[in-house]
Amino acid sequence: MNLDASNPPKAVVLVSGGLDSATVLAMAHDRGFECYALSLHYGQRARSELDAAKKVAAGSALHRIVDIDLSQFGGSALTDTSIDVPEDEPDGIPVTYVPARNTVFLSLALAWAEALDARDIFIGVNAVDYSGYPDCRAEFIEAFQAMANLATKVGVEDGDVHIHTPLINLTKAEIISAGAGLSVDYAATVSCYQPDGQGRACARCDSCRIRADGFAAASVPDPTRYQVPPA
Amino acid sequence: MNLDASNPPKAVVLVSGGLDSATVLAMAHDRGFECYALSLHYGQRARSELDAAKKVAAGSALHRIVDIDLSQFGGSALTDTSIDVPEDEPDGIPVTYVPARNTVFLSLALAWAEALDARDIFIGVNAVDYSGYPDCRAEFIEAFQAMANLATKVGVEDGDVHIHTPLINLTKAEIISAGAGLSVDYAATVSCYQPDGQGRACARCDSCRIRADGFAAASVPDPTRYQVPPA
Repeated sequence: MNLDASNPPKAVVLVSGGLDSATVLAMAHDRGFECYALSLHYGQRARSELDAAKKVAAGSALHRIVDIDLSQFGGSALTDTSIDVPEDEPDGIPVTYVPARNTVFLSLALAWAEALDARDIFIGVNAVDYSGYPDCRAEFIEAFQAMANLATKVGVEDGDVHIHTPLINLTKAEIISAGAGLSVDYAATVSCYQPDGQGRACARCDSCRIRADGFAAASVPDPTRYQVPPA
Repeated sequence: MNLDASNPPKAVVLVSGGLDSATVLAMAHDRGFECYALSLHYGQRARSELDAAKKVAAGSALHRIVDIDLSQFGGSALTDTSIDVPEDEPDGIPVTYVPARNTVFLSLALAWAEALDARDIFIGVNAVDYSGYPDCRAEFIEAFQAMANLATKVGVEDGDVHIHTPLINLTKAEIISAGAGLSVDYAATVSCYQPDGQGRACARCDSCRIRADGFAAASVPDPTRYQVPPA
């Protein structure tokens, strides 16, 4: 894509406050897009995610935090306080999966993109570490993009709504290497499923372990603030 | 579909408070589904829509009203107070179109359906009167259903998420005839784009005129409460 630096195209970038979406935002900037950061307050237990999202999105053209309470539907350990967040997940679709989360997130990104007359949406889904989540797979993203091109004015008129997933086939180490090359401040990001009130990571949940292993494998110093140092 | 009356399958039904979705809800009941009614408070100007939705959904297993403020994205006369609602729409995509509205609505219905372990979603889209809305067409619904079967646990495991659009090819008169046969109380519904504080219809907007013509063509008495009688 050849971008005109004096008139950059707009992109909506989903920013959670985690490591992955911080990397995606840096990639979208690096590709020449004017970035509109979208965060969702969806009833996740970890409010520190949104504090992190504000830091991560600070350099964007605009950052919106939209309230959509998915916890009222129940069904996930991340939003339903009656389900424990496990330290070890069995195979299959994990209990931390939030029903239709990425579908809802991408739909809201699409609504904003259409109102902005933007054709590009970035999301940090990853099929390597989240193989149990149906809505992190390439076939889901392709189906969403096909639907988006039938759902919207820009899609119907121009057919070029594009869902970008630059991380989808990267390992955590590859993501961290790419982000470090773009000077992403990973200290600002939170990956832990249940950080403490100061946003410090538990070092024990699946998400913490995948993250710590990623820094080690990438040979990048881990700037994560932990409650207690990882074992 | 053969339904066991002692153990009816669950369906999520999108209920706006308008004539169309009231008819769809009656149809879903009539087909033997246990109905979970979902209404969205999305920043529409007409708050009386939600009052109507509560009356319409009164006989459902459960009725949820979910807040999702689409007005913060702008871009539609129905949510953006800086755009006038026209009395006469030119051809093409109308200014009353809300960006990606049905995509967002169906995504939230899908999230609830997945948490309920339901496979069926009903929506009152209509391609006859709303031909200018990209997200009211059968090809959009088919693409959404294909996406939903890749996005969700039930879709991936069973592949039978089904988006029902029983009105899609019906004229307004046919919808009203069908609903009258199912004893739908159309007096409880609101179709007007800008009703007054008591939910009384303007009789002048596109939506009012389509509705009034529908009752006339169906030879069903029009129970709509108007601010002034239609011309």
